[in-house]
Amino acid sequence: MVKVGVAGYGVIGQRLADGVALQKDMELVGIADLAPTLSIKALREKGMPYDLYLVEGADKSKFDAAGIPYKGSFQDLIGKVDIMLDSSPGGVGAKNKELYAKAGVKAIFQGGEKNSVADVFFHGYANYEKGLGVNYLKLTSCNTTGLIRSVDCLDRKYGIDRVAITIIRRVADPGDYHRGLTNALQMDKAPSHQALDLMTIMPHIEATGILVHTPVTHGHIITVVAHAKKGKITKDMALEAFKTHNRIRVVTIDEGFLGNASFFRYARDLGNPRGDMYEIGLWEDSIVESGDNIMYAINIPQESVTIPETMDGIRASLKMQPDSATGTAETNKYLGLGKWKK
Amino acid sequence: MVKVGVAGYGVIGQRLADGVALQKDMELVGIADLAPTLSIKALREKGMPYDLYLVEGADKSKFDAAGIPYKGSFQDLIGKVDIMLDSSPGGVGAKNKELYAKAGVKAIFQGGEKNSVADVFFHGYANYEKGLGVNYLKLTSCNTTGLIRSVDCLDRKYGIDRVAITIIRRVADPGDYHRGLTNALQMDKAPSHQALDLMTIMPHIEATGILVHTPVTHGHIITVVAHAKKGKITKDMALEAFKTHNRIRVVTIDEGFLGNASFFRYARDLGNPRGDMYEIGLWEDSIVESGDNIMYAINIPQESVTIPETMDGIRASLKMQPDSATGTAETNKYLGLGKWKK
Amino acid sequence: MVKVGVAGYGVIGQRLADGVALQKDMELVGIADLAPTLSIKALREKGMPYDLYLVEGADKSKFDAAGIPYKGSFQDLIGKVDIMLDSSPGGVGAKNKELYAKAGVKAIFQGGEKNSVADVFFHGYANYEKGLGVNYLKLTSCNTTGLIRSVDCLDRKYGIDRVAITIIRRVADPGDYHRGLTNALQMDKAPSHQALDLMTIMPHIEATGILVHTPVTHGHIITVVAHAKKGKITKDMALEAFKTHNRIRVVTIDEGFLGNASFFRYARDLGNPRGDMYEIGLWEDSIVESGDNIMYAINIPQESVTIPETMDGIRASLKMQPDSATGTAETNKYLGLGKWKK
Amino acid sequence: MVKVGVAGYGVIGQRLADGVALQKDMELVGIADLAPTLSIKALREKGMPYDLYLVEGADKSKFDAAGIPYKGSFQDLIGKVDIMLDSSPGGVGAKNKELYAKAGVKAIFQGGEKNSVADVFFHGYANYEKGLGVNYLKLTSCNTTGLIRSVDCLDRKYGIDRVAITIIRRVADPGDYHRGLTNALQMDKAPSHQALDLMTIMPHIEATGILVHTPVTHGHIITVVAHAKKGKITKDMALEAFKTHNRIRVVTIDEGFLGNASFFRYARDLGNPRGDMYEIGLWEDSIVESGDNIMYAINIPQESVTIPETMDGIRASLKMQPDSATGTAETNKYLGLGKWKK
Repeated sequence: MVKVGVAGYGVIGQRLADGVALQKDMELVGIADLAPTLSIKALREKGMPYDLYLVEGADKSKFDAAGIPYKGSFQDLIGKVDIMLDSSPGGVGAKNKELYAKAGVKAIFQGGEKNSVADVFFHGYANYEKGLGVNYLKLTSCNTTGLIRSVDCLDRKYGIDRVAITIIRRVADPGDYHRGLTNALQMDKAPSHQALDLMTIMPHIEATGILVHTPVTHGHIITVVAHAKKGKITKDMALEAFKTHNRIRVVTIDEGFLGNASFFRYARDLGNPRGDMYEIGLWEDSIVESGDNIMYAINIPQESVTIPETMDGIRASLKMQPDSATGTAETNKYLGLGKWKK
Repeated sequence: MVKVGVAGYGVIGQRLADGVALQKDMELVGIADLAPTLSIKALREKGMPYDLYLVEGADKSKFDAAGIPYKGSFQDLIGKVDIMLDSSPGGVGAKNKELYAKAGVKAIFQGGEKNSVADVFFHGYANYEKGLGVNYLKLTSCNTTGLIRSVDCLDRKYGIDRVAITIIRRVADPGDYHRGLTNALQMDKAPSHQALDLMTIMPHIEATGILVHTPVTHGHIITVVAHAKKGKITKDMALEAFKTHNRIRVVTIDEGFLGNASFFRYARDLGNPRGDMYEIGLWEDSIVESGDNIMYAINIPQESVTIPETMDGIRASLKMQPDSATGTAETNKYLGLGKWKK
Repeated sequence: MVKVGVAGYGVIGQRLADGVALQKDMELVGIADLAPTLSIKALREKGMPYDLYLVEGADKSKFDAAGIPYKGSFQDLIGKVDIMLDSSPGGVGAKNKELYAKAGVKAIFQGGEKNSVADVFFHGYANYEKGLGVNYLKLTSCNTTGLIRSVDCLDRKYGIDRVAITIIRRVADPGDYHRGLTNALQMDKAPSHQALDLMTIMPHIEATGILVHTPVTHGHIITVVAHAKKGKITKDMALEAFKTHNRIRVVTIDEGFLGNASFFRYARDLGNPRGDMYEIGLWEDSIVESGDNIMYAINIPQESVTIPETMDGIRASLKMQPDSATGTAETNKYLGLGKWKK
Repeated sequence: MVKVGVAGYGVIGQRLADGVALQKDMELVGIADLAPTLSIKALREKGMPYDLYLVEGADKSKFDAAGIPYKGSFQDLIGKVDIMLDSSPGGVGAKNKELYAKAGVKAIFQGGEKNSVADVFFHGYANYEKGLGVNYLKLTSCNTTGLIRSVDCLDRKYGIDRVAITIIRRVADPGDYHRGLTNALQMDKAPSHQALDLMTIMPHIEATGILVHTPVTHGHIITVVAHAKKGKITKDMALEAFKTHNRIRVVTIDEGFLGNASFFRYARDLGNPRGDMYEIGLWEDSIVESGDNIMYAINIPQESVTIPETMDGIRASLKMQPDSATGTAETNKYLGLGKWKK
């Protein structure tokens, strides 16, 4: 039983904890945070299903005042685990790494940290084998994780050598007030970091792209123009590949998936905790051919999409499974991914 | 065991079905709908926890094509229940009533129907006793339901004779594309129907108000200026009353409830199905005194707020409990309302 | 002096009238509308700079009550002009065409009408010559008009044979309440009609694309992946072409054009009537190379972008100038396009 | 001829400069700013109708590179004027005050500065006489300025002793990216500062209120519950008062003013520079009676509403007119306020 801890119980940290709790070959030892945030208060109201540890600088009197019990210090938590999932605010993970190193504990960092924090920049499908036994991994960001799923899916089957992407980015998460955009589309300088990150993970592909921020909270949409290494990928060929992938949901507008908000509503109606979805969505009726290119649109549920690949990362780092096929299959089994096809 | 059916499995209907399923003294016989919507598809993907019946006009071939099993016709469902909860699209409920009448089945309609569809316009706290044994009830709309909770709470304890409200209304539900508002605040003609509806339910209060639509999806906010029948209600007095109410959550901005989206995020983090909350929110730091008036702001979770009062309606219509105090207490027990205070 | 009338004084019609009024070789005879809308009331408050004619079905008593003077009937207006610019609501233009035909008057329809209403589907740069002397033209829609400007610009200089576009569409105009989108990105089925329309105008180019609606009101953003017929178009080559175009403003994020709302704010600060801009924006820092493709992003000011090309259409239909170069130059002179480069 | 300078050429500063330029008894000597922002670039593109002076810290090379001419330093500007209008970013005005004092120049600060910066907190209608001859005035903020117009209007005619307001606040200006809100309504702690500010200006009135931020850019909406000092103010009485005010536009939903965005669209259609409006809007169909209270809703065009009262402030500070009636009348004449009633 692999022992796992989570540092930072925010939007991603909560979901990492829930994800680990679902893996029957892992044990969630506890989570660590700094302040009695609403997320921590919700944990208390649920009866503390996860043990809480306090990071340095935490004001214990505030936790006491809010009636929130804690088990010990961050170092106590680190001392009990094989691997830490670090979803602290950007930059904090790099500092935490020193504690992990001192304790001889492995760690996986999220997209907010610099690449240099880790030995390998990781994606469960595209480079699982590079993560085998490695002490420090960094997960790709939410957009890159979902994008790579779809590109890797085509690449494995047909060969891809070039992609040009347009990222229509949600600007805030539900419940955010500290960032936002009102009646504006905001440009980033091109090329987008997601395209550059894809090339780091899949160096045989030339990637570029443009990112535009939009005032919504439920899921990024990315359009991808992918070029076949040889010959041409038709719409039918692309569909055939996408439909076999356990982390891609192929949907249509006609059945009711009118946009990004449909995935959120559907996941709520499914009874998924928090209305989360681990799969990216892919619209069958968005797929079009353009010369030797295939073009399509995907939906990225930004809050939850990196959870499966982080579970894959634990499997790789701790050599629980030897390769991408077996590692991702194990993750998928415990998260119920692919079950919906039946 | 009271047998209940639900007509219309949309935003409200799904939640009514879930609410009935939680009442240990009720049995959800089934739900009825017209088309294999995403909500029905989610029901199928969950393994059909509720039996489905098809209303007249439903195209069976579409359900068959989608692999969605059904138990029978709408009339079959009506024949098996004591009471129907009708959350059909506005106007359809009035037609359905003929079927209910023919079958001798009671019914509760939602806010979209005209008042004339029902014998009594109902609120679980403010006029439970008027609904006792009555065949056809109509629930107050989401805003009115939440508003009355707070006004009734003050009125019972201190006496209220006048309210002036400002409704800052969310314009669409999450997942809606057929209605929306972009970068605009839209006025309704005053007085708002919610003020008029309050007077129907609580005829001893003079109410008026203004409604403004805003481009958000998570919860209306209402400010209330309430006038004491005698003397003056201080902030402390108001707080004391609100804090005892099991369907009102008193919160503060400082603890993290910065706005309407905080309630939605908190309910998601609590693990509540769909991220729903039955309670209205009330900001302690919004309460201010103005002469003999007390002013405060509440948050109305529009998708789920009417569920408890609808359960109360079943209890009244079927005389399961004799008065508001016992009826609402029973509903609260099964929905876990008030438990969070401990 | 060419005599021009405008049918439909809405978002587009008002701007067409203003555009004609600026052409020193044209005379705006008047505008026609059905009801005393806010736009008509603003015309009155400005002192009726344009004469108003009433279309069939107009209720004169409403105009009288609002103190709005009118000169005569729609047919009176048609009888006085050489050409009508029809910006009536979609479908009405087709009916109006019968009146134009009977009176022997030419007409230009806007994008809302079906292509079949016109003899030629028109763009001032891409196919001016096809419109020469033709009685009925239909303008490309706002997105297509702006898109073609940029593609034609590259095509003339370097040759383009394929484009794949992603349209990030604003969902409503400022002041719209009847349509809108709230916290959602909505998909259209691919390929987008704009790609198909481009192929109608520029049949030597293969075009496809995906359109996503976003909840904003100020300007569409389109990303374009354009394939060179021969060799490769570098970023410098593309920039050189774009910078010479009088209806394209090349801007950078660093100088303050952070997104679509910056163009609107800039045009307001320029003192342009209504804060309008005739040029499309093109971000220098969005241009990236991808194999033989050049990728870039443009901003489409949806309310005003078709005005210059409609002026071009008048010039073509009435053979005022013999070709695209001289026709567009005349329009640009009167609208002050290109002047800003100095 | 009174000589006026403007410090800070942002959203407010541009409009102050335009406002001064319209006053035939004032001369706009110039404006001062720090960096070649888009607003300054627009000034250049318009041909520098106003002279530019550079504040300390300005990088001249950047202005030179952008081809933007300047006349001198901030101190040069101060040396040429009788009064400075300071619309610098919050806090900078307090520092600038030292320069003004040294030069013996009067100044008017905007709402972003602390009250302590000025000798008198000023409103053209409510306390003009207090500003007579005073060296340093601070204008009320946009919401307070518009709110006081309406309350003062009723107070003068009928007497008001108490108001309770709900401010539905726009969260950003058009073109803002540095602040925003996405799919959320955000609460401020009550009472709102606008209510407190009203009491500072009108100490005979008891005011309180709640403020909610909403994700829109065009105009705040405020609902006001105002209590008559004696007797009762009916809807007709309120309307009669509001209709005579030259800075209040009484409108109806039926004529097309559906919400805050309608005012912006109407002002654009009027041809007002930047689509600005100096008047607040007041919906006739929002006015309702509640006991001895009158309730109504107003629209505050946040970018331009303080311009007239700032012109009034110049008049008071320099004793150009002896009282509110004559001072505001002169401002109104030059800004064309009230003309639209004819």
